[in-house]
Amino acid sequence: MDGKFISFEGGEGSGKSTQLKLLASAFEKSALPFISTREPGGSKGAEKIRSLLVSGDTDSWDSLTETLLFNAARADHLNKLVLPALKENKTVICDRFLDSTIVYQGIGKGLNEAYIKSLHHIIFGNFMPDLTIILDISPEKGLMRAGGRGDNENRFEKLDIEFHRKIRDGFLNIAKRESERCVVLDATQNLDILHKQIIETIAIRCGIKL
Amino acid sequence: MDGKFISFEGGEGSGKSTQLKLLASAFEKSALPFISTREPGGSKGAEKIRSLLVSGDTDSWDSLTETLLFNAARADHLNKLVLPALKENKTVICDRFLDSTIVYQGIGKGLNEAYIKSLHHIIFGNFMPDLTIILDISPEKGLMRAGGRGDNENRFEKLDIEFHRKIRDGFLNIAKRESERCVVLDATQNLDILHKQIIETIAIRCGIKL
Repeated sequence: MDGKFISFEGGEGSGKSTQLKLLASAFEKSALPFISTREPGGSKGAEKIRSLLVSGDTDSWDSLTETLLFNAARADHLNKLVLPALKENKTVICDRFLDSTIVYQGIGKGLNEAYIKSLHHIIFGNFMPDLTIILDISPEKGLMRAGGRGDNENRFEKLDIEFHRKIRDGFLNIAKRESERCVVLDATQNLDILHKQIIETIAIRCGIKL
Repeated sequence: MDGKFISFEGGEGSGKSTQLKLLASAFEKSALPFISTREPGGSKGAEKIRSLLVSGDTDSWDSLTETLLFNAARADHLNKLVLPALKENKTVICDRFLDSTIVYQGIGKGLNEAYIKSLHHIIFGNFMPDLTIILDISPEKGLMRAGGRGDNENRFEKLDIEFHRKIRDGFLNIAKRESERCVVLDATQNLDILHKQIIETIAIRCGIKL
């Protein structure tokens, strides 16, 4: 497998979408072969599974079923889109991957990390991103950016902050344990400076000069 | 877990649906608590996943994604319907379960049995039917019953017969290896005689007198 698989992770308001767009533009300018995709979804079948996951009540799926649906979507996405692109020596940049499953299904739905990893291993073997860039921001700043939910007078919003704090800690813990694969960047920086750091990180870790 | 979980397996034209209806009637007459369900599907979420599996082209899902979707449907079905019913001491009779996944995804899609079983084990632990009744019929007779596709002059129909022969062998092999759980009954017998054999089998294996 020749191409590099680069995932982006981060919580609410971390600016992932903006940075993914800037990165895609940089790839286009450099004329290096790449695709930009997302999870859950990214391929025709996986997008159908995504619509099952995102429609209806938030509690319509139990944690196990939801995680299996994420894995089914991932299997379709990898087999139909990501792996063929990597074989053609394209760089694949992907909005969210396994770390989001671990952090959101783990913290949000109570499945433990070891279990989610065992499932990943039996389904996908050792397949992992070559590089994961985590855009880090405090939940207070992130939620303010994402839509001004900054005050913490309301019980629901307090719960929300607590949840997002756990999500942030989840990503940072993964980065600490898997420092070979993960790089944490400060998402509160100026857009262009952050973009340059992403470009530098990809050059250093993956040998891709944009 | 107090209730018994009884699955029915068998190929094309084996008369599963008819026998399941006769069995449900026997449960109703006896006033013993039971539910009759099916896979894939059986619960609200699982039926949504079923519609992804049965709609579109037959090759729209690769073998891994398809098997993960079957397992996601099974997780929803077990967690939302089957396990709660068993806890309430109901007998659950189910049209198809893991053996169909092994036989159809294995033979039809080329995933190996050990892999499908490993997935089942990591997802569902040791959960298996207390009793599996396999309604056995030769593919020639079965296909004739199912719609009169009995002549074998046509290449497609010959392929069809070959496929159904493998499905039959698949079920018989499972029954041979797991004789504690499986009982094979001759599906070519008179309906009422077969029904009586099913009633007797359930009495002997599960201690349920209908």
